[in-house]
Amino acid sequence: MGEGFGTYKMGNDAALMEYVSSVNIACGFHGGDPRIMRETVRLAIEKNVGIGAHPGLQDLIGFGRREMEISPQEVYDLTVYQIGALQAFITSEGGVMQHVKPHGALYNMAAKRSELAEAVAEAIYRVNPKLILFGLAGSSLILEGKKLGLSTAEEAFADRSYMKDGSLASRKEAKGVIKDAELAVKQAIQIVKEETVNSLEGDEIPLNAKTICLHGDGEHALTFARKMNEELSKNGVRISNFLQTRR
Amino acid sequence: MGEGFGTYKMGNDAALMEYVSSVNIACGFHGGDPRIMRETVRLAIEKNVGIGAHPGLQDLIGFGRREMEISPQEVYDLTVYQIGALQAFITSEGGVMQHVKPHGALYNMAAKRSELAEAVAEAIYRVNPKLILFGLAGSSLILEGKKLGLSTAEEAFADRSYMKDGSLASRKEAKGVIKDAELAVKQAIQIVKEETVNSLEGDEIPLNAKTICLHGDGEHALTFARKMNEELSKNGVRISNFLQTRR
Amino acid sequence: MGEGFGTYKMGNDAALMEYVSSVNIACGFHGGDPRIMRETVRLAIEKNVGIGAHPGLQDLIGFGRREMEISPQEVYDLTVYQIGALQAFITSEGGVMQHVKPHGALYNMAAKRSELAEAVAEAIYRVNPKLILFGLAGSSLILEGKKLGLSTAEEAFADRSYMKDGSLASRKEAKGVIKDAELAVKQAIQIVKEETVNSLEGDEIPLNAKTICLHGDGEHALTFARKMNEELSKNGVRISNFLQTRR
Amino acid sequence: MGEGFGTYKMGNDAALMEYVSSVNIACGFHGGDPRIMRETVRLAIEKNVGIGAHPGLQDLIGFGRREMEISPQEVYDLTVYQIGALQAFITSEGGVMQHVKPHGALYNMAAKRSELAEAVAEAIYRVNPKLILFGLAGSSLILEGKKLGLSTAEEAFADRSYMKDGSLASRKEAKGVIKDAELAVKQAIQIVKEETVNSLEGDEIPLNAKTICLHGDGEHALTFARKMNEELSKNGVRISNFLQTRR
Repeated sequence: MGEGFGTYKMGNDAALMEYVSSVNIACGFHGGDPRIMRETVRLAIEKNVGIGAHPGLQDLIGFGRREMEISPQEVYDLTVYQIGALQAFITSEGGVMQHVKPHGALYNMAAKRSELAEAVAEAIYRVNPKLILFGLAGSSLILEGKKLGLSTAEEAFADRSYMKDGSLASRKEAKGVIKDAELAVKQAIQIVKEETVNSLEGDEIPLNAKTICLHGDGEHALTFARKMNEELSKNGVRISNFLQTRR
Repeated sequence: MGEGFGTYKMGNDAALMEYVSSVNIACGFHGGDPRIMRETVRLAIEKNVGIGAHPGLQDLIGFGRREMEISPQEVYDLTVYQIGALQAFITSEGGVMQHVKPHGALYNMAAKRSELAEAVAEAIYRVNPKLILFGLAGSSLILEGKKLGLSTAEEAFADRSYMKDGSLASRKEAKGVIKDAELAVKQAIQIVKEETVNSLEGDEIPLNAKTICLHGDGEHALTFARKMNEELSKNGVRISNFLQTRR
Repeated sequence: MGEGFGTYKMGNDAALMEYVSSVNIACGFHGGDPRIMRETVRLAIEKNVGIGAHPGLQDLIGFGRREMEISPQEVYDLTVYQIGALQAFITSEGGVMQHVKPHGALYNMAAKRSELAEAVAEAIYRVNPKLILFGLAGSSLILEGKKLGLSTAEEAFADRSYMKDGSLASRKEAKGVIKDAELAVKQAIQIVKEETVNSLEGDEIPLNAKTICLHGDGEHALTFARKMNEELSKNGVRISNFLQTRR
Repeated sequence: MGEGFGTYKMGNDAALMEYVSSVNIACGFHGGDPRIMRETVRLAIEKNVGIGAHPGLQDLIGFGRREMEISPQEVYDLTVYQIGALQAFITSEGGVMQHVKPHGALYNMAAKRSELAEAVAEAIYRVNPKLILFGLAGSSLILEGKKLGLSTAEEAFADRSYMKDGSLASRKEAKGVIKDAELAVKQAIQIVKEETVNSLEGDEIPLNAKTICLHGDGEHALTFARKMNEELSKNGVRISNFLQTRR
């Protein structure tokens, strides 16, 4: 959320917040700017959703989606910076930061490469060890976060296909992205209730996730979020953020 | 301090820190970047100098020195953002933020225009009301900070000439900048000990300042800092930062 | 046109090009990027509209709309740079650059301040003296362009109110922006056919314009462009770009 | 050359130009800005050195040195843009562009990956097919340039070690960078006069180069350039740029 920049708009954050329990707010590197961060934080507090920092690569023109040669030290530094920037808006609006979830190429690189995962985890730990680290279920990011003593939330995707090793199938593959909302909802329910997912190769594999990612951009984002919310509720799943759960 | 960017260097921060009691650290908008912020914060903690955030306009190519049409809301937002970013490095390195001093054109605009001064002060107050606001002695910035209940530190300049209304003479005027180190030191001692300064027009005017600004860039910055430090000490002036004073 | 950036979209350029004879294409400083410039240039060549460079201030987050302290040399340099960048896309796509029109705050500052107007005009002249300078009718920009020997096209606004001295009423004034499409079209027809406009104060003043500006952003941009095009045609006005006129 | 940005300086371009016959001028993406481009172009024309565009990745904070996931279309677009921007300064100062040499990570990626090499070559060809493409001797970049019908200049490095397949040894290897000026000059003379180089593995391998790269940054850049120039001249090598050679 909050991924516009200056006069450029992106997503319908206010409407989407009705259907989710936690949000990731861009921090000005891949998208977002100080005004948008303030407005989005305020909105999230009003809607009572869990607030997370969504730090990204310093690549506005590529929206933080292009992997790049980056050192663990660079990853550490940009993560500290962006968490801090968002924290100031949360503090000044009277809220609490719940979690940190790296964005785009940073998320993907940290899922696979342990030295980058460790850099993200250490940045979070040193700024505030109570923050929860969100990362791909079963990834290096989760592993390194746990090693350091962070609380973690393993994340699953309703609208992405999985390979039998538990990794995500590429967006470029024919069936990499699940476009049928029915199928995506079905996958989400299976993940939540069965703690499994069906891989592209046809195997049922274990998947232990505590949070399901919905994208805020894209034309069907809102419809999709509403449907997901309704169907999960119908199936007896209570959606809540992590601060509520702790209480 | 910390005003380089990426591979670009600026100033000799480590050497300068020997002669000052507080530093203003750039926060990535007019200069500075996450790596430089971390390194400069670490250095400042080692040298035991008071650490301040130095938020500037989002104008890297103009180094934040070009005044621009900017709304109070924009000033508020960019100040919150930059304080937060620096705070995260200070927290993660185990330090404490002492103060905030706006940079360049933001400092000058906030000295003159009360609505912008109020925006800076409010940003500081809402992020952390214990932070001290540094501003031009007698300016709107100090006034608005006090109104809001912030601690303030009125700032004087050793190497700039004053007009009889207490404002700074323009850098563009012949005698606007004092280049003779002897004269600058003499002015500093007068400011500290007499609480007056001689204006360009020849009048002795009152000037109540708690901090004297030294610039970190420029080729003579280091020599100048050393001389100032030595001469003030010889004249019985104890230089200390504000956290030390409070104790 | 072409004022998006990276993943951020702005305006419906392809549709708008059906109703205009010339377009101003952003050059990457206030908006636009290399990909968008190539795509927009290609579209303009296909639609056979006159292509102009639309250089702006280096202020992406402010969309080039915030006036700033800027020297004539800075204005010269950023104008040369941006014209060149767009020219390369026009050359590589087999087109011809028709004109240059400064964007936003640069346009407004150059309309009022002759030293900045001269800087824009000289930049154009030195890159390509055949380029036509578009500027506010009766402004410094037009005057300085003519002095230097550039062809100029005085520009009028259909949807903005005029003061009796020929300047534009502020957007912030109640009637500064004409929102009623009928009235705007009526004003456009009067400007073209009578070479006059009715000022806010009620006087009919002379206005000699060769081009009428339509904005590409805003929700009604397309409807407005279509209506303007139709009504002008019905009133016997032939709309053409400047390269066509010269033939 | 011209790799500073805003108030940030880099290299001693004026002094270095005494010892080289061609220069690569940064175009504002990895370094450089409109003012610096104008000044550097003017200097190059005065010193009568061949002028080349030095387009880089849009990564100012990484100085264009970080490889990133980038599509051929993105490479094409940023190359066209940057050539155009520099061309405008050359035109406005009365000079002629001689060549294009990609910078940093773009140079390295285009040396290895033919689809990116082709994108660079096509960008140059479509903007101005008379421009000479500078690239690593024996690389994909040279190959793709030739395929498209561009004139090319194969480039060698005096201060870098070679592997026996003709590629450069990594900067990270112990002997990857030749720091001894004597050895570097010796390697340069061998490259020019024998058209061979000794690989790290100990083999003498053929190396056909038309231009030798000197770096403009680094503290010894100037000494190194002077020595190289003197020793080559003593050894009967005439240093000239490509426009002079053509005459």
